[in-house]
Amino acid sequence: MSQPVTACVLIIGNEILSGRTQDVNLNHLAKTLGEWGVQVKEARVIPDVVDTIVAAINETRRQFDYVFTTGGIGPTHDDITAECVARAFGVDLMQHPDIAERIRQRPAPEDVMASRLLMARVPIGAVLIDNPTGGPQGFAMENVYVMAGIPMIMQGMLSSLAGKLKSGPIVRSRSIRAYLGESQIAQALGEIQSAHGGVDIGSYPFFREERYGTTLVIRGTDEQQIERAAQAVMDAVTAAGETPEDLGGEE
Amino acid sequence: MSQPVTACVLIIGNEILSGRTQDVNLNHLAKTLGEWGVQVKEARVIPDVVDTIVAAINETRRQFDYVFTTGGIGPTHDDITAECVARAFGVDLMQHPDIAERIRQRPAPEDVMASRLLMARVPIGAVLIDNPTGGPQGFAMENVYVMAGIPMIMQGMLSSLAGKLKSGPIVRSRSIRAYLGESQIAQALGEIQSAHGGVDIGSYPFFREERYGTTLVIRGTDEQQIERAAQAVMDAVTAAGETPEDLGGEE
Repeated sequence: MSQPVTACVLIIGNEILSGRTQDVNLNHLAKTLGEWGVQVKEARVIPDVVDTIVAAINETRRQFDYVFTTGGIGPTHDDITAECVARAFGVDLMQHPDIAERIRQRPAPEDVMASRLLMARVPIGAVLIDNPTGGPQGFAMENVYVMAGIPMIMQGMLSSLAGKLKSGPIVRSRSIRAYLGESQIAQALGEIQSAHGGVDIGSYPFFREERYGTTLVIRGTDEQQIERAAQAVMDAVTAAGETPEDLGGEE
Repeated sequence: MSQPVTACVLIIGNEILSGRTQDVNLNHLAKTLGEWGVQVKEARVIPDVVDTIVAAINETRRQFDYVFTTGGIGPTHDDITAECVARAFGVDLMQHPDIAERIRQRPAPEDVMASRLLMARVPIGAVLIDNPTGGPQGFAMENVYVMAGIPMIMQGMLSSLAGKLKSGPIVRSRSIRAYLGESQIAQALGEIQSAHGGVDIGSYPFFREERYGTTLVIRGTDEQQIERAAQAVMDAVTAAGETPEDLGGEE
């Protein structure tokens, strides 16, 4: 079995921490990276503060196989991610000719162009992440991948990384819906978890169509282990007097 | 001027990191706490792993005035937040009589009740956070506030804390919409930011009704400083040939 490949997501931006903006990038990153065999193990939302960003990059890049950042790569004074990555790695910024070329394709007055070209700055040694939306590229510095904060652009950049990252075992899930309270099955679930160490069993209560229920999610990298645990969970739901609904891997 | 009061949010749950669930609790916490004069300065999403949770609690509770956790306080084996908080503080868990009493009001078979009563466990020394939805209460251990992950219940618990937290200066915002590219105003914005150190100016590009634009958000605790910076930003938009739209504090 191959080694797990792990990732941390750093969401950079005062606007998320102030509540102005609802982050949706983590969810997309988690799903997409998960399908590629990269497990997101932590995420942090941090403000536009140089020391905070530098410290978070340096702490997490040593702890995880990959770090993905979103936000802070535009042309304004509050776009400080590239500078922070350079500081974290102890290198200078340079203007990357390929990004500059793309930026110059769209004409602009001199002062506007000067601002736009700030988006061409990358730490020395960085490699580019393509931007299929046509705007300036992102970049990767060693294992730190720096992407835009605007979801559509971030998603485009991420899609360009398909097939280019290290891949570990893929975590698959199997969901079973049961219209019963969590407590009605808690003891059995605990026993099933103890007996099936190769999977993680989660219980997520919901209220739907005027009824309480819980979705039981089995996650693991081995299909047979998942199948065995799922069967045990369904049997436990039946034993509790309800009919389990097998949602498969859909939820 | 009173001292800023800061908070960190710990979102505990594999389901957020797997992408199964889109977190909405951070956004609600950020807005509500912000209105109360508590500034969310960081958030972390962490998995259901004891050592990770304990370490995150201990690191953040020393760094911020408040830590708010969401998730992991139900009756199943994957609900380990109370245990982790107890470990972080080096105390044992106890069954809290007030939570147990509330749980016992709804009758259940003995084994189901035993599972439900797991939700009555709090670290010794904790004080309760009311749960207006009628379910088991949350708790606070010193500056660590432990709440449910289900948004409706979390919001109820949070509302019961109104007026009970330390309060610092409230960060207010003023937003100005401009239908121009960020680069067209980047240089002027940078100069305005330099001249108005008491506020933070953010620039958030958007694409709406087939037009590019950017929302310029001025944040600060002093209304006069915000007003002066907002005026300077509006003048800069005008100078760039566009008409600024004053959105006030709405966005």
